[in-house]
Amino acid sequence: MKKVAIVGASGYSGEELVRLLLSHPHVELATVTSRQNAGQTLAQVFPRFAHHPRATALRFSEPRVEVLATSAQVIFLALPHGVAAQYTAPLLQQGCQVIDLSADFRVKSPEVYKEFYAHDHPAAELLDQAVYGLPEIYRAQIKQSSLVASPGCYPTGILLPAIPLLKAGLVKSSGIIADSLSGISGAGRKAEQNYLFVECNESLRPYGVPKHRHLSEIEQELSIAAGAPVTIQFTPHLVPVNRGILTTLYLAPAKHFTDAKGMEDLSEKITACYQSAYGTEPFVRLLEGKALPDTKNVVGTNMIEIAWRLDPRTGRLIVMSAEDNLLKGASGQAVQSMNIMCGFPETAGLT
Amino acid sequence: MKKVAIVGASGYSGEELVRLLLSHPHVELATVTSRQNAGQTLAQVFPRFAHHPRATALRFSEPRVEVLATSAQVIFLALPHGVAAQYTAPLLQQGCQVIDLSADFRVKSPEVYKEFYAHDHPAAELLDQAVYGLPEIYRAQIKQSSLVASPGCYPTGILLPAIPLLKAGLVKSSGIIADSLSGISGAGRKAEQNYLFVECNESLRPYGVPKHRHLSEIEQELSIAAGAPVTIQFTPHLVPVNRGILTTLYLAPAKHFTDAKGMEDLSEKITACYQSAYGTEPFVRLLEGKALPDTKNVVGTNMIEIAWRLDPRTGRLIVMSAEDNLLKGASGQAVQSMNIMCGFPETAGLT
Amino acid sequence: MKKVAIVGASGYSGEELVRLLLSHPHVELATVTSRQNAGQTLAQVFPRFAHHPRATALRFSEPRVEVLATSAQVIFLALPHGVAAQYTAPLLQQGCQVIDLSADFRVKSPEVYKEFYAHDHPAAELLDQAVYGLPEIYRAQIKQSSLVASPGCYPTGILLPAIPLLKAGLVKSSGIIADSLSGISGAGRKAEQNYLFVECNESLRPYGVPKHRHLSEIEQELSIAAGAPVTIQFTPHLVPVNRGILTTLYLAPAKHFTDAKGMEDLSEKITACYQSAYGTEPFVRLLEGKALPDTKNVVGTNMIEIAWRLDPRTGRLIVMSAEDNLLKGASGQAVQSMNIMCGFPETAGLT
Amino acid sequence: MKKVAIVGASGYSGEELVRLLLSHPHVELATVTSRQNAGQTLAQVFPRFAHHPRATALRFSEPRVEVLATSAQVIFLALPHGVAAQYTAPLLQQGCQVIDLSADFRVKSPEVYKEFYAHDHPAAELLDQAVYGLPEIYRAQIKQSSLVASPGCYPTGILLPAIPLLKAGLVKSSGIIADSLSGISGAGRKAEQNYLFVECNESLRPYGVPKHRHLSEIEQELSIAAGAPVTIQFTPHLVPVNRGILTTLYLAPAKHFTDAKGMEDLSEKITACYQSAYGTEPFVRLLEGKALPDTKNVVGTNMIEIAWRLDPRTGRLIVMSAEDNLLKGASGQAVQSMNIMCGFPETAGLT
Repeated sequence: MKKVAIVGASGYSGEELVRLLLSHPHVELATVTSRQNAGQTLAQVFPRFAHHPRATALRFSEPRVEVLATSAQVIFLALPHGVAAQYTAPLLQQGCQVIDLSADFRVKSPEVYKEFYAHDHPAAELLDQAVYGLPEIYRAQIKQSSLVASPGCYPTGILLPAIPLLKAGLVKSSGIIADSLSGISGAGRKAEQNYLFVECNESLRPYGVPKHRHLSEIEQELSIAAGAPVTIQFTPHLVPVNRGILTTLYLAPAKHFTDAKGMEDLSEKITACYQSAYGTEPFVRLLEGKALPDTKNVVGTNMIEIAWRLDPRTGRLIVMSAEDNLLKGASGQAVQSMNIMCGFPETAGLT
Repeated sequence: MKKVAIVGASGYSGEELVRLLLSHPHVELATVTSRQNAGQTLAQVFPRFAHHPRATALRFSEPRVEVLATSAQVIFLALPHGVAAQYTAPLLQQGCQVIDLSADFRVKSPEVYKEFYAHDHPAAELLDQAVYGLPEIYRAQIKQSSLVASPGCYPTGILLPAIPLLKAGLVKSSGIIADSLSGISGAGRKAEQNYLFVECNESLRPYGVPKHRHLSEIEQELSIAAGAPVTIQFTPHLVPVNRGILTTLYLAPAKHFTDAKGMEDLSEKITACYQSAYGTEPFVRLLEGKALPDTKNVVGTNMIEIAWRLDPRTGRLIVMSAEDNLLKGASGQAVQSMNIMCGFPETAGLT
Repeated sequence: MKKVAIVGASGYSGEELVRLLLSHPHVELATVTSRQNAGQTLAQVFPRFAHHPRATALRFSEPRVEVLATSAQVIFLALPHGVAAQYTAPLLQQGCQVIDLSADFRVKSPEVYKEFYAHDHPAAELLDQAVYGLPEIYRAQIKQSSLVASPGCYPTGILLPAIPLLKAGLVKSSGIIADSLSGISGAGRKAEQNYLFVECNESLRPYGVPKHRHLSEIEQELSIAAGAPVTIQFTPHLVPVNRGILTTLYLAPAKHFTDAKGMEDLSEKITACYQSAYGTEPFVRLLEGKALPDTKNVVGTNMIEIAWRLDPRTGRLIVMSAEDNLLKGASGQAVQSMNIMCGFPETAGLT
Repeated sequence: MKKVAIVGASGYSGEELVRLLLSHPHVELATVTSRQNAGQTLAQVFPRFAHHPRATALRFSEPRVEVLATSAQVIFLALPHGVAAQYTAPLLQQGCQVIDLSADFRVKSPEVYKEFYAHDHPAAELLDQAVYGLPEIYRAQIKQSSLVASPGCYPTGILLPAIPLLKAGLVKSSGIIADSLSGISGAGRKAEQNYLFVECNESLRPYGVPKHRHLSEIEQELSIAAGAPVTIQFTPHLVPVNRGILTTLYLAPAKHFTDAKGMEDLSEKITACYQSAYGTEPFVRLLEGKALPDTKNVVGTNMIEIAWRLDPRTGRLIVMSAEDNLLKGASGQAVQSMNIMCGFPETAGLT
């Protein structure tokens, strides 16, 4: 049993980490921190966990590096960007393994980070050590790493469907469009008027157009996959569900098909490409037949659903994905990375 | 006071027509038909209208052409495609004005109709007479017409933002992508498992990929605006709100801008284009500043909201629109057409 | 055209007042105040009203008595309790008519006010002048009044069904239970974590048990109707809809019925009682047959739906009501009172 | 590993049984039946389970007693009332253990069954063998039984809070009122217009007033607890959440308290009563301090939350409970009974 800690456990991602780690077979949740809830038990802050034996014993504490480092071997940082990085260096020096759910170590270039996050990178010297925590892509590197930068919610839903196609050269790296719908928990547990029930219910709205922060990591990873710089169009929308991200990707096949035969050939290649990339992945569900992704089939799980269609009228490839923004898009994926780092079965605590 | 009738008044569009026409200052709702509700009063079927004096007097009847033609001068057809067309010829012969909310007279080509609706056109001889009922585009023709084919919900949200840009040559006619989110009322009042509360709530899903029926009228009208054949990519999604369609359009400027100056020039042209097209339109709201469309600002009204952004990173133009699928996307627009046909103030009964 | 002002026009009730008064045929919305939005136009703060000619002209101002009194004859106060009362005396002295949507003048006894609102009454000397603004009960007094205390949302849904039965002596004044469900807009436009979308969606919860503030006015008015002190049990619940209150009342018939005949007699008396009280009321819908109240049939209107059942198994009378908490439960009823005070048709601007 | 079967596995309760039994550590899901889905795999019908190894192997079959009895030792019947009973006798004769989620064996009296379900009892001779499957009350009997009648969703939320108080003589057995709110999944996966998204969303409505079928089992069990016939008032309401039941119970203390001291004494007795009844129960959460039940804290779990308040103004005791109607109110509780019948740890597969 490894001891783990969650720094910033009172937000939605932190709460999901608590849920997952409380019932994880190979770890003990040793420490949870939260400035606003310090002193209260888990049971008091999250009544839904109150039945768990640890929930009445474990109290939220102030986040202090010394305490964290002595109480836990693996530390999850569920903190705002800029803040997370301040904990990372000292925790690594104390020998902890760190899984950071913020954006601080996702983008390799401090310049790009500054462009998108509007402040200097707080710990640029650690960027080299950090591994982008997308297990289906970087499993081997995660295994060796002490610092995992767990991907953002939108990036996960875009990268997993797109990367195999780009790597295989099946689609062009230019002209990619990603259109995403996100549940409101994506905005965090912030008491802002914009996210009140009445403001979100019966409302559909785009936001962050045209330059959402997640573009920085999305384009970095797509560029690596394509072997060339990729710039994409990305439009997030806020829709009234608690959880779930649905993404629709518009891609141009590298080789234009001109007849039914060409389309069939391409179909077979795409099928083979996805099968080869994800056919044995425990958390990727490749839909078959007429099925299309639906967030209600993945919410509460660490699964991502992927389906695609070729359009003979436009020659385009449309790929759709569905994930739970708090699980495969955040805390579930972070636990998946922990499992890899610690040599646990990759699905431990996630099924 | 003109007498009006609604054929098929028990669906969501029909119900909205009832609501609008009951309180319209220049018409009297003379007849409502519905096979399933025949014999019942409006008050019994729709408790929410029960306070209206006509609601207890007016009973649903079986749809019969003779009765309709003698009781009303303007007939709204809120029927399934294929069925609506059967009423049209006899009603026109009896001198009625017909506003058809089905797809039957929207598409000028019987071949295209058959391709998308999977049966022969039931009254192809009338296609020439029909005017596509988008008042902001065809106001003059609607004024002269006895047969208006009221547009579909998705087409309205795509055409109104796109047509002025295409007409002005500001965007390319190729490569257009429309990504839309629709409330569940768009599926109609059908008792199907797919549209049960539990199946739709906390669910986000694409459907009809890649060839939704509305493409037929969308592409027809875009082609007219562009002066050349247009094929677009269109992906509808079902999201858990009762009403509202949010559309995000991806367009390529006709002339690529390469610097801030070029972008500013193009911005001015787009502003001028929209201002010229819709600056005085009573039902188009061009958003300014940071505002983006939100369906909650248009639901319950006949208004469409439009905003746009140029993306200097991709060179693309993103246009977003929001409308109430049952009003500007169906019944409100149909009443707007009636106002024009009958010489009433265009906003009568709609504000 | 009378000139009207809204003080505190940025909350949900204030916004509804704006909507109603902008389209009211006999008034001109002259002034809207809001500390947080001062300087902005109506169109900027509420995009949904942007198409109205006044919306771009009218700017929110700071609330100042002199300005209010010179610009408007009727003033709506949509302010927190305690604050509203401070504006009332000076506005009345300036000759304004005041309709207060807060709790400040609803309760006749300053002691009861203090018990429920936890501070001294800020203007007890005005309590005698105030009329409780329930038009169906106090129409004559409202007509003569310069100060109307518009009822709370829960009280309206409880009092209108209960008062006629108590007045007629058909039910006992003891043992009354009211169980209510309210949409989230009832909590106001406050940026508090409890009312975030994710906290309210897929959540059902009681609150304010067992002593909600609205009990003070509910019991006052029930006592007047019964001619004796009435204490009731009242449990409000928060449920995930934007608008609407559904109330279920449990009442004991004054004379216990023991057989089918007795039940039938009582049924006839209840029917006659409600018919006599509300048969011609424009905003009360007495449901017949199998129909039961449903908030979706009243949301967006000033209507209250009422239905009742006698239970032969328990001998109890169950009365159910549905209203829009922001309309019949707040702003609609306030406008109804204004119509009465000003001699306008009572339904003006409300249908 | 015991082999289990689910008869009628395509409804909401059936689907939850599938979910629970697929991941249960001590059973193997051997057979699932469904007339409408016969021939399809679990993965095809329920994409959310597709990642489970059994989901692609296990196909829905027609429900046939011989097949069921040879393939499984424990059979869950998730069938409509009247139908379930037909399978019971032959399955028991074949030596199976049967857990029936329908109403068929909940009510001991065939006359009461007929009164509430409007047809003769289909297997009255088995009523003596059946145990009412409320583990917290009938644990010992369930252990010995081969036929468990798993309670209805509303009854569970009413009985668990009420029974200890009645048994202890702390509350009167007369005058009990239960007011419940249910999510829409309570209506089952039926394609009826009443349960369409648009009809339920933004709607609050009572139904089944005043004689809901569940009264038959509720009153039977309350009468047993009270040792005297109990008749209660029960009003269910439909509210727009997928899952969850919130119940508010109004009870009269057996001994009226008249002062603060009396209230404190009673409080202590109630606390002790609940502590004694449920203090060590794994699936009952007694809330403390200011906490009130909230369905969002129990949805997805087999837990029921209970809180109570004494009202010094009315002398009444208000008890509130929250449960997941598909888990503690149906399938979770059925699995809990199976665990007891089979000697598994009671929480196996449920945490």
